Order: sequence, then C-alpha cells, then structure tokens
Amino acid sequence: MHTHIAYARPTLLVDEGRVRRNIREMAERVAAAGIRFRPHFKTHQSADVGEWFREVGVSAITVSSVPMADYFASHGWDDITIASPINVRDMDALNALAQRITLHVTVDSVDAVEHLERDVLHPVSVWIEINTGDNRTGVEPSDRACIARVAGCIVESGRLTLGGLIAHDGQTYQASTVEEIVAIYRSTTYVLGNLAEYVWEETEQRPLISIGDTPTGKLIDNLGDIDELRPGNFVFFDLTQLEIGSCCEEDIAVALACPVVSKSTARREIVLHAGAVRLSLASLPGENDEPTFGRIVRLCEDGWGPMLPGCHVSRLSQELAVVSMSAEVLASVKVGDVLGVLPVHSCLTVDAMKQMQKLDGSLLPCFRDES
Amino acid sequence: MHTHIAYARPTLLVDEGRVRRNIREMAERVAAAGIRFRPHFKTHQSADVGEWFREVGVSAITVSSVPMADYFASHGWDDITIASPINVRDMDALNALAQRITLHVTVDSVDAVEHLERDVLHPVSVWIEINTGDNRTGVEPSDRACIARVAGCIVESGRLTLGGLIAHDGQTYQASTVEEIVAIYRSTTYVLGNLAEYVWEETEQRPLISIGDTPTGKLIDNLGDIDELRPGNFVFFDLTQLEIGSCCEEDIAVALACPVVSKSTARREIVLHAGAVRLSLASLPGENDEPTFGRIVRLCEDGWGPMLPGCHVSRLSQELAVVSMSAEVLASVKVGDVLGVLPVHSCLTVDAMKQMQKLDGSLLPCFRDES
Repeated sequence: MHTHIAYARPTLLVDEGRVRRNIREMAERVAAAGIRFRPHFKTHQSADVGEWFREVGVSAITVSSVPMADYFASHGWDDITIASPINVRDMDALNALAQRITLHVTVDSVDAVEHLERDVLHPVSVWIEINTGDNRTGVEPSDRACIARVAGCIVESGRLTLGGLIAHDGQTYQASTVEEIVAIYRSTTYVLGNLAEYVWEETEQRPLISIGDTPTGKLIDNLGDIDELRPGNFVFFDLTQLEIGSCCEEDIAVALACPVVSKSTARREIVLHAGAVRLSLASLPGENDEPTFGRIVRLCEDGWGPMLPGCHVSRLSQELAVVSMSAEVLASVKVGDVLGVLPVHSCLTVDAMKQMQKLDGSLLPCFRDES
Repeated sequence: MHTHIAYARPTLLVDEGRVRRNIREMAERVAAAGIRFRPHFKTHQSADVGEWFREVGVSAITVSSVPMADYFASHGWDDITIASPINVRDMDALNALAQRITLHVTVDSVDAVEHLERDVLHPVSVWIEINTGDNRTGVEPSDRACIARVAGCIVESGRLTLGGLIAHDGQTYQASTVEEIVAIYRSTTYVLGNLAEYVWEETEQRPLISIGDTPTGKLIDNLGDIDELRPGNFVFFDLTQLEIGSCCEEDIAVALACPVVSKSTARREIVLHAGAVRLSLASLPGENDEPTFGRIVRLCEDGWGPMLPGCHVSRLSQELAVVSMSAEVLASVKVGDVLGVLPVHSCLTVDAMKQMQKLDGSLLPCFRDES
C-alpha cells in the first residue's frame, strides 16, 4: 500500500499510466480508420484528464449536458458536441455557449429543431439523432418524413448548419460476444449510410455519420464506414467493459480505495465505507446470478493488484458496501485496512465522487454541476 | 405548473408543508412512546430542513459519516450520533468533532473499540451495534464474548462512556406487510432487551437501546421497548416506503422536475433529462416484474398531482430517463414540457442533487462531502 497516503476516507484512485495508454490506443485505432476522434468526456469529467487527450492531438470532444459543455469550454475546448437531445428549456445557456465555441447539438424531433431554429442566436451545427437499436432517443430510421422535415428545417435556417446523423449503440452493452458487436455495427452503419444518402438527396448536403460507444471503438477493426467516433468509457474502463470483452483487467484505470469498517467471520463478509452514493447501484450478474456491485483488489505501491478471487461487493446501502469474501482473503483483512473496489460502471462512480486522486497523491478535481 | 419558475434543468422540488407534517407526525409518535427522537439527517442533508426539526423540539440527531456530522455541527447541532461503525482511519476528524460536541459513535468489533480507546482524545459515547437481522454490520447477538469485551473496553476507558446497544433493522425494507414489521420489531427488541440485561450485569451500567428505520417508526404502535428511535427517510418518504406501506402517496415530499427532451409515439415513451446521476439506479419491481425507477406526476401551482397511471421510468442511462407512458398521457406530452418524477429512494436522489428547491422557488442547499 502507498504508505505515504492515509486513505482516511473513500478515495477514487486513478492510474495515470493506464489512462494514458487507454487514450493512446483508442486514438491510434481511430486514426488508423482515418476518421475523427471526438471522445466523450462524461466519463472522466476532468479538465486535467482532458489535457492528456490534447497531448495525442484531440481537439474536438463530446459531453452530455450544457453545464458540462460550459465546464470544458472554460478549460479551452472550443469544438464540443452535446450528444443528448437538446433541452429546449435551456436556450439561454445554449446561446451563451454557441457564442463562445463551435457548438454541435443533437435533435430527434421536429418540435426540438423548430424550437432551436426560432430561439438560436448564433451559428450551431445540428446533428439528427437516429435510433439504431438502443431504443432510448433518436428518430426511427423508418420515419423518413420526420428526418426530411428536421433536415429541411436545418438547411433552410440562417444560423443552423447540418452536421450529420448521430447514433449511440448502447445496445452493445448487452452484447456478450464480439460477433454481436460486429453485427450491431454493420446494421447501424447500413442504416445510417442509407439515411445519409437520403438526406443528401433531399438537402443537397452530405451529412456526416457519427457513432459512439467504447465496445464499438475497441472491437470493430475497420471503422471506415463512419466519419466520427465518440467513445467515452474506454478512458477508465470498468467491470462492465471487462464483461463485454472490450478491455482486459489491466486496462481498468480507476479503483475506489475504501476503509474496512466491519468484519463478520460468521457471514464471511466485510463492510467498506463506500456505498451507493459512491459506487452507484450499477450491478452485473455474478455467481448464482447474485448481483455484483464491484470486485475487490489490494492496493500496492504502484496502484493495485489483480481482482481477488471469490471476493465481490454483494450489497450496498447509502454509505456502506458489504463484500462477500473467500475464507482465505477474509483471514487476512481486518477493520482499519483499506481495500480497492473496481467499479461496475466507472462513469457513475466518477460522477458521484467529483474528484480523483493520482497514485502519487495529487488530486484531479472533476466538473460539478452547480445548476 | 409554477409559471414563474423555468425548470430549465432537473430540479429537486421539496414540498415544505408535507415535510413539516411528516416531521410533526413522527415526532408525535415518538413523544407518545416517551422515548428519545434522534432523527437521521442523511435523508435530507440540509441545514434548513434541520431547523424544521428544531421547531418541534428535536435536539439530538443521527448522521452516517464524520463529514456529515461536521456539517451539522457547524449548523449548531451539538448532540450527534454517527450511526455507522467508526472508521478508525479517520480519528483526527473524529477527535476534532468530539472536542466540539457531544459525540456518539458506533462500534461492532473489539478491534474498533481498541483503536478508539487508544486514539481518542476527548469524551465519546460509544454504542455497541448488534446485528438484529439486517446482516450488514453489528456483532452477532450470540457472540456474547465479543459484546462483553467491547463493553468492558468502553467502561474501563477513561474517555469512553457506554451509550448502549444500537441496531438498524434494514430488513424492514423487504417487508410487505405490517405483520412482518411487527415481527421484526418484536424479535429485535427481545434480542436487544436480553443483551442489555447481560451488558448491565457484566458492566454494572445500564445500556440504552436505540433502533432506526422509518417503517418501524411509522408502523409500530407502541415503541416503549426502546429508548431511542432514529428514522430518517420519513422526512420525504418515497416509492419504497409507499410500497412497504409506511406512507401514503400524499406524504411523499420530493419530486424531481425534469424537462422532456425526446418522445417516441411508436414506443409510447418519452425521455427526460434526469438519469442515473440524479435518480440513482434504485428500482422497485413494477408490472410484469420490469423494474421501475420512478413514477410520473404533473407539476401544478401548489406542487404536483397524483401519480399518472401507466407511466413509470423504465430505464436509466447516465443523464437520461426513459419513461413508459399510457397512450392517453403520451398524447398530452411534448418535447419541452416538464414532468415530475417521484423517486424510488429519496435519500439517494437528494444525495445526488445536493440541492433542493421549495415550491416558491427558493433553494435549500445540502451538505456536500468535499473530503
């Protein structure tokens, strides 16, 4: 354990070496495909980590809200996509942003684009979101009438320009084989390619194609069918990505260091000061289909070691995490020790913690939504 | 809808009238039993809401961490129980607190109490946590040797005093009938009563008995077997308590106001700007055993209306909430509207939002853990 650091309280450790390697590898994959890399910064939400992206040549980013865009604009990012359908109630903030930076927004309805067209005061690039199977947001691909109306509204507007078609294949998170990811990618690019031709015919402007998600970025070998990739989670990875197969254990770059506050030999459990307010309630099915809310590692001088077999977070309350343990590991752990937890969903853990700590003890503050 | 308030962004509304009624009713129940009311402030985490408790005579409170105790100590609370097993790595902060206020802490191991005895610099009241069935923390009731050693360590110490026996019956949250809650209460008070006599015999000091949880506070008619009650959630209630039966719908005192950002007539869904980072991933089984992450209400001049039938949050991503809707309601909702979400677990939603807004538009800031 880093004997010079107390870990008196739950602390989100980040391994800068792993993060930089994850960034470099994804940047190289995207560069090899000859497309634009527009990483999603909602995972790390950190101006400092953003600088590590800049060092590999990244100049355009993705965020998930206007306040998050504001934060990164304040840290020198001047080409930002907000990859959630615009919140038409937040036009004042959106206009303030559009005045400062090259702003790309997303719409998936005639209502939204008409709102935008009416209220926008500065040039904005607009992307039409298509539902390619995630079934969350996006116009249905079959609804060409809607797509044509949205595209028409954009190209006829004085201030709006047509960015392109944007999709997020969140369904890759449910995939369990590379073949499934490949099938999703093929289906998505086929759908978007056809719609791009359609929009091109309708508007005489060629829309670009932008898709997101880490599994696609890591597991698709030829990304040449798209113009832009917006993965986010790969910067840290987590147990969900490990399960999907888009990373290996040594790629996971964050661990929550937690003090042990209780131990039950009878139940073979320990309890960590951690809880749902830090790890989130994100879970994966574990052994016997019991949910797993995190895996356990030991901290060491240069970070943390491998996942301890037979040890996982089995229950969470607000501030506590119950860890089921093998008898062997349990025997070596006592109240007052510190253990690391690899999170199921690193984005949610980072968002909850609002701050990370490098292995040398220095702090990386994150965006805080004060709105 | 409150036409003078924009709700441009997700906003956690709090109905002060309902909160004050919830506080008053619980205070009256506890007073009728002739026991001490030590409400848990982790649910609201707000100095302002704390004042509403003071107005009904509350002078002693419960929190779940040292930083949260610090926050309320800074707002004039001088008798605080930290109802999680002490974090022995955080002794400096604990000592600083013990110097300022009457501090009660919880231990469930010989290790922890020995740490405490060695490092504590100021008087501290120590409660021995007993596992009465929640299986999270606490000494097993059968482990009398451990209980005797912990109690002995406390009474032989110069700075520690024996507070009593403390338990949290979190298993009441899994109960589906009042009879189950009553059975849990009877079992818990029987176990704690016996152990209190044992500790009394061993130490010649009479330990008090403190138990927690909102279902017990609301559903047990005679709380005379205990000395202190520490419920927290009742201040706001939520869908979980509604399901348990410890509140009615009109008692739920918080709702997350969320802009509608997307609508799919084909899937009969809308999407709210809300997400797991605000609602948490807490869920309840809904129709067809599909999880429900929140129920939907319409905002109105004096708060919000009843839960809309056939409408619930069915999926969450980081910043978005997908809402399944009845055809009738769907037809009346458009992009740019605002809907309210009643949370499954109000404690986690408040913790995530860090701020509440009264119906008159004034803000109630909450504790922010900056540690």
